[in-house]
Amino acid sequence: MIPGPFLLYIGDKRNPLDIKTSRGLATFRRADCIGELREADNTLTLGLPSMTAEEAVAAGARSLVLGIATSGGRLEEAMIPHVLAALDAGLDIVSGLHQHLSTEPRIRERAEALGRRLIDVRAAPEGLKVGTGAARPGRRILTVGTDCAVGKMYTSIHLADALNARGVPARFRATGQTGVLIAGDGVVIDSVIADFIAGAAEALSPAREDGVWDVIEGQGSLFNPSFAGVSLGLLHGAQPQALVMCHDPSRPHMRGLPHMQVPGIAACIEENLRSARLTSPDAEFIGVSINGSLFDAAAAQDLRARITAETGLPCVDPLVTGMDAVIDRLIARFPA
Amino acid sequence: MIPGPFLLYIGDKRNPLDIKTSRGLATFRRADCIGELREADNTLTLGLPSMTAEEAVAAGARSLVLGIATSGGRLEEAMIPHVLAALDAGLDIVSGLHQHLSTEPRIRERAEALGRRLIDVRAAPEGLKVGTGAARPGRRILTVGTDCAVGKMYTSIHLADALNARGVPARFRATGQTGVLIAGDGVVIDSVIADFIAGAAEALSPAREDGVWDVIEGQGSLFNPSFAGVSLGLLHGAQPQALVMCHDPSRPHMRGLPHMQVPGIAACIEENLRSARLTSPDAEFIGVSINGSLFDAAAAQDLRARITAETGLPCVDPLVTGMDAVIDRLIARFPA
Repeated sequence: MIPGPFLLYIGDKRNPLDIKTSRGLATFRRADCIGELREADNTLTLGLPSMTAEEAVAAGARSLVLGIATSGGRLEEAMIPHVLAALDAGLDIVSGLHQHLSTEPRIRERAEALGRRLIDVRAAPEGLKVGTGAARPGRRILTVGTDCAVGKMYTSIHLADALNARGVPARFRATGQTGVLIAGDGVVIDSVIADFIAGAAEALSPAREDGVWDVIEGQGSLFNPSFAGVSLGLLHGAQPQALVMCHDPSRPHMRGLPHMQVPGIAACIEENLRSARLTSPDAEFIGVSINGSLFDAAAAQDLRARITAETGLPCVDPLVTGMDAVIDRLIARFPA
Repeated sequence: MIPGPFLLYIGDKRNPLDIKTSRGLATFRRADCIGELREADNTLTLGLPSMTAEEAVAAGARSLVLGIATSGGRLEEAMIPHVLAALDAGLDIVSGLHQHLSTEPRIRERAEALGRRLIDVRAAPEGLKVGTGAARPGRRILTVGTDCAVGKMYTSIHLADALNARGVPARFRATGQTGVLIAGDGVVIDSVIADFIAGAAEALSPAREDGVWDVIEGQGSLFNPSFAGVSLGLLHGAQPQALVMCHDPSRPHMRGLPHMQVPGIAACIEENLRSARLTSPDAEFIGVSINGSLFDAAAAQDLRARITAETGLPCVDPLVTGMDAVIDRLIARFPA
């Protein structure tokens, strides 16, 4: 449904967190990524060849992915010439922004004139229902976090892959624009009409009795005042038996909110359990997942040990330790 | 912006909670309500003359208000002939449903052919921003509840009116389709894109230093698994200093959810305080508001006394006791 191979947009973004959708595709769908499109003076890179739209088309690309975050999810003026040039060169445009591509007249008119597709991953899906909270069969894991952008998607994908590698059947269920682009399906939960948050989560992980774990990507944080409503509705709708807490130990304050402290892991676990129990009375945590990439190996190991001592839970760093400690706990607590 | 006088639609709805938008207009904007449109065999009434669209036009009506709740907020087939007849008779159509009027081809085509307006109160507003949780000046009261449809709008309107009558300046800030129709402005918070719930609440009650209380209508309940995400985002965005808990003591279970218990008032107060403190560290409750209309006077009085004993808060029933006990507490806790 989303035409690859891709040219990934970075543009003038300087903060690695602002290109996380492009980076997610470059990481998890590397074979489908032809190159990256960035301003000449931008040192941020995905490790892909820097290309113009014309060069990408010559190399086989079929779409330009605007895999960046902007203020309020709006199209920025600096992006427009690049989008128009990509349309001219023959690419479809894929966007994870809130503002739909067709709302910009220059883009809409050029795409119509050239017969190109404009694909908004964040377009609210039709036909959603209000959630009910009624108990449903199935095995569900939800990743939650102390903040947004702390590794919930990475943890979910690595956990689903590692479960399958261990012979425990699992599938990744995407709830963000990056995850949906990687998986090719899912629902961008922060883009649904507010009344349907929990209902969308229920529809994303419907009743199943085949023993397969749905590993559901979490969003935001109950402690992030911008997005906690989304996090709570997703938590209630996902109805998880098992939870994994994700945390970025290098975060000085809540993302983009210097006035808001990052909560302690134990407090965040307690709050998520209290909230989860409304629809999943026996919900429990099976581990903590951190991103220790800004720490040296010894400091990261010490940090993981301290988190385990504080919470009584295995603490992993997916890219360093793998997921086995969390999977061992899951298997012990939830036998096949 | 919403053309009155109104003909209020009841149709075939049998549950009083399903006509609460029509009832709200009949209660708080009585002078603008010409009549009600209902199936001949329906005994539910707003106490207005039963009229056809033609009769309502002859009596001066300018719009038909679809002030009912339907499953999932969708247009029901039984409504369509009435809407078409109203368009034919000369009325504009106002809807509080999620499904927009123009998505039904028969309605869209008839309205276009006749030049009538289709007004969706629940259309998501443009230009919203993500909330920040940053402290802002102003005096804000939020009504919250043990469930949805327990009297938060009634309590908010009565409280704002009673405050003004006592010389304490206040304004009602609407967050639901009924409130927006009554007030003529506001934002239907369950209809915004999920990412913007808190931001919409911040925009609805912006910084002000004139001493006027914004009395913000709450939505849903932190304990209602269908809508808790909306309730939490609204709570964080409203950043209230003062909270009023609303409760319907006759509710046997959460509305429409036989599997979900109504929480205790004390537990619901505790959960709202814990959540509110993320953005409003000194938030406190100033009272409880119940709808005791299904109890006899002595039983209702006893119930209010028991709630006060349990919570330490004044307990009012707006239509019986008035709001003075809550206002006394507000003035004592928050001097001018």
